[in-house]
Amino acid sequence: ALAASGEPGRRMPTVAAVLPAGGCGERMGVGTPKQFCPILERPLISYTLQALERVCWIKDIVVAVTAENMGVMERIVQKYQHTRVSLAEAGVTRHRSIFNGLKALAEDEPGCKLSKPQVVIIHDAVRPFVEEDILLQVALAAEEHGAAGAIRPLVSTVISASADGCLDHSLERATHRASEMPQAFLFDVIYEAYQQCSDYDLEFGTECLQLALKYSDTKAKLVEGSPDLWKVTYKRDLSAAESIIKERISQEICMVMDTKEDTERVGYLLEEVLKKELNNVKIVSGVRSHGGRDIQQITLPQCYNFVCVNGAASDFPETQQLLSVLEQSSLSILYPVVVVLVYFLDFKSVPLGQKMESLMWIREFAKEVKKRNILLCGLLICYPQDEQTLQESLKQGAAIIAALIKDRNPGLIGQLLVA
Amino acid sequence: ALAASGEPGRRMPTVAAVLPAGGCGERMGVGTPKQFCPILERPLISYTLQALERVCWIKDIVVAVTAENMGVMERIVQKYQHTRVSLAEAGVTRHRSIFNGLKALAEDEPGCKLSKPQVVIIHDAVRPFVEEDILLQVALAAEEHGAAGAIRPLVSTVISASADGCLDHSLERATHRASEMPQAFLFDVIYEAYQQCSDYDLEFGTECLQLALKYSDTKAKLVEGSPDLWKVTYKRDLSAAESIIKERISQEICMVMDTKEDTERVGYLLEEVLKKELNNVKIVSGVRSHGGRDIQQITLPQCYNFVCVNGAASDFPETQQLLSVLEQSSLSILYPVVVVLVYFLDFKSVPLGQKMESLMWIREFAKEVKKRNILLCGLLICYPQDEQTLQESLKQGAAIIAALIKDRNPGLIGQLLVA
Ligand SMILES: [Mg+2]
Ligand SMILES: [Mg+2]
Repeated sequence: ALAASGEPGRRMPTVAAVLPAGGCGERMGVGTPKQFCPILERPLISYTLQALERVCWIKDIVVAVTAENMGVMERIVQKYQHTRVSLAEAGVTRHRSIFNGLKALAEDEPGCKLSKPQVVIIHDAVRPFVEEDILLQVALAAEEHGAAGAIRPLVSTVISASADGCLDHSLERATHRASEMPQAFLFDVIYEAYQQCSDYDLEFGTECLQLALKYSDTKAKLVEGSPDLWKVTYKRDLSAAESIIKERISQEICMVMDTKEDTERVGYLLEEVLKKELNNVKIVSGVRSHGGRDIQQITLPQCYNFVCVNGAASDFPETQQLLSVLEQSSLSILYPVVVVLVYFLDFKSVPLGQKMESLMWIREFAKEVKKRNILLCGLLICYPQDEQTLQESLKQGAAIIAALIKDRNPGLIGQLLVA
Repeated sequence: ALAASGEPGRRMPTVAAVLPAGGCGERMGVGTPKQFCPILERPLISYTLQALERVCWIKDIVVAVTAENMGVMERIVQKYQHTRVSLAEAGVTRHRSIFNGLKALAEDEPGCKLSKPQVVIIHDAVRPFVEEDILLQVALAAEEHGAAGAIRPLVSTVISASADGCLDHSLERATHRASEMPQAFLFDVIYEAYQQCSDYDLEFGTECLQLALKYSDTKAKLVEGSPDLWKVTYKRDLSAAESIIKERISQEICMVMDTKEDTERVGYLLEEVLKKELNNVKIVSGVRSHGGRDIQQITLPQCYNFVCVNGAASDFPETQQLLSVLEQSSLSILYPVVVVLVYFLDFKSVPLGQKMESLMWIREFAKEVKKRNILLCGLLICYPQDEQTLQESLKQGAAIIAALIKDRNPGLIGQLLVA
């Protein structure tokens, strides 16, 4: 295959990936191994698998998990619809887990359904933000040099300690680097190294690049990686990962308008205010049905936030239809989807309280759709108002929408908010 | 003074701290230097100053900032009521900034109002979670050894690269450590080192411990620190710091009850549910006035979350009084304070909508108190209900309270939420 190899005409080697995921998470200070810690209710390792599956030229992904967690991992693969994932049993150390993963790929294993790749990528289950670019770079460098690994500049000075716990010397920061993941190897180079290395290496070693050097005489090519490659190690790293994921899925809001309604004009005003107030958020338009009939024809963008502008006459079945389109799209399998139903109401002609009571169905309905990972809220905005007050209300509405999308807190589903 | 030195009878040396804060934040990928980046609207450096000011035996804190940011820093010191802070001008490198900070403490400077300490702690403005314990350890070790610094195990393997960008060798992880902050020195040891060191050291060096070794022949004692010492370096670190701070100020909720009311019983039921549902959150009780007169006598705990249970007859002036007590307590100078006003209402006898309209004053009032960093919301719970439905409502109320406290999102102020 002529693959996305960066150089036109360069043939991509066959590539598989091995993820050691046998760790027990003692550094995290929590009971759950860190690769299984939830972010927006989905385990961290599923985000890493998603990142690898986005890359079409990685044919197989072998995850090494402990016998104890095999069932957990099988359910993760099924629930989040991972493809290309095979499981191997983890060993008691990281190196033994990687070795087991490699064995599953080696054709000499009896009953093995996977085929031996030319290049194998080794990555950590707890580095979910790996990009195709760096995967490609290490894979191609491995094909050329036999081994390659991502590196980063040192954040702290590294020092060598003397036996009495005092400073012996500090290292030159310019000539040293932190060795990160992903790494990649010609399969035969790393498999040979693992077969030859000592039990001591398998127990106490940490660095695959070092094994390739020592046992296969292969000097790894070092490739500068991005800060996103960092390893989720401490509890604070889980918070950081959650923030990054929340920010990524909050980049885009889809506005769904009910075109048959008199509120169309003010719907577009809201869209304008959202564009102005929510910097860095892209607002895309989806047009809703005329009278609910065409609703199946909405093409939903790959977007996890919907603001639906309803007129006074918009009714429950219509909203229900929209939400079932959402469910069928399977968008909410991977991330919680926020849906804000906006109602423009004349608070003078219909008392606000009365209108709120008539919208109480949103509360019960929100509990239902929460089961399918959809977070539903209502937002009431007074209309008509004089132009300046209206702008104020729309701005407050934008702030409420931003809060719901940014925090994605399930504790607030079903609420009717007022701007 | 016989200070909290860990050993009874050990005399504490006089101690000052120097914080280089001249960095420009290019790694953060944002315009603002990272020490001035806001967390809950307060600049990061203010959290670090707060951590140092909690330690009573640190007499003076010298912050080195660029001439350009001197005004910004002065306003931070004033707004967040920092004491013991003096400003010095930063140099163009980290070492020059530290040197300028030390000069401000040396008694040989003309017009200097600070006095020379026996021990000086050097810390980073971007390590806000430093604890008294590690500060004490490095200060005492510095008194004994001349120099001391916090270290951490390496998270990644460190490698040495050859000139052609390939692996030369990987370092033994067991004998190497990351050098972190705080560090401490006998003042004369480090000041002497700075006076003697070369321009090259001042321009390109990074490690104070190395200067003490090279120019004052002092081998620093290394002290194992906690993971919390990590340096806020990348944008994700700001998110992590925000999560840690939010979690810390969400540990405790103060329940304020209106004792004259018929809702007292259900108020205590809510308290029970909060205790059961919000794990790790301590619920403390504060009793409110009888008829509003005794409200000034409430002693507010050092707590940033208040749940106020109101009866049907609780009125606006009473709430206003409570909030002015809060303001006078200056709790909200450092952190946004969340106040949830809970109303138990018989939705059958008074329509929910009507009651909501009568509570619309909360919306305007919330805008007012937001100016003083108080985030106000209303929460309506139906009462009486049959026991099981009531328990469900109270659980939902607890989830709403948890969401408001955890996220502390100002976009939701003034909302009336329904459980
Ligand atoms: Mg390795
Ligand atoms: Mg230093």
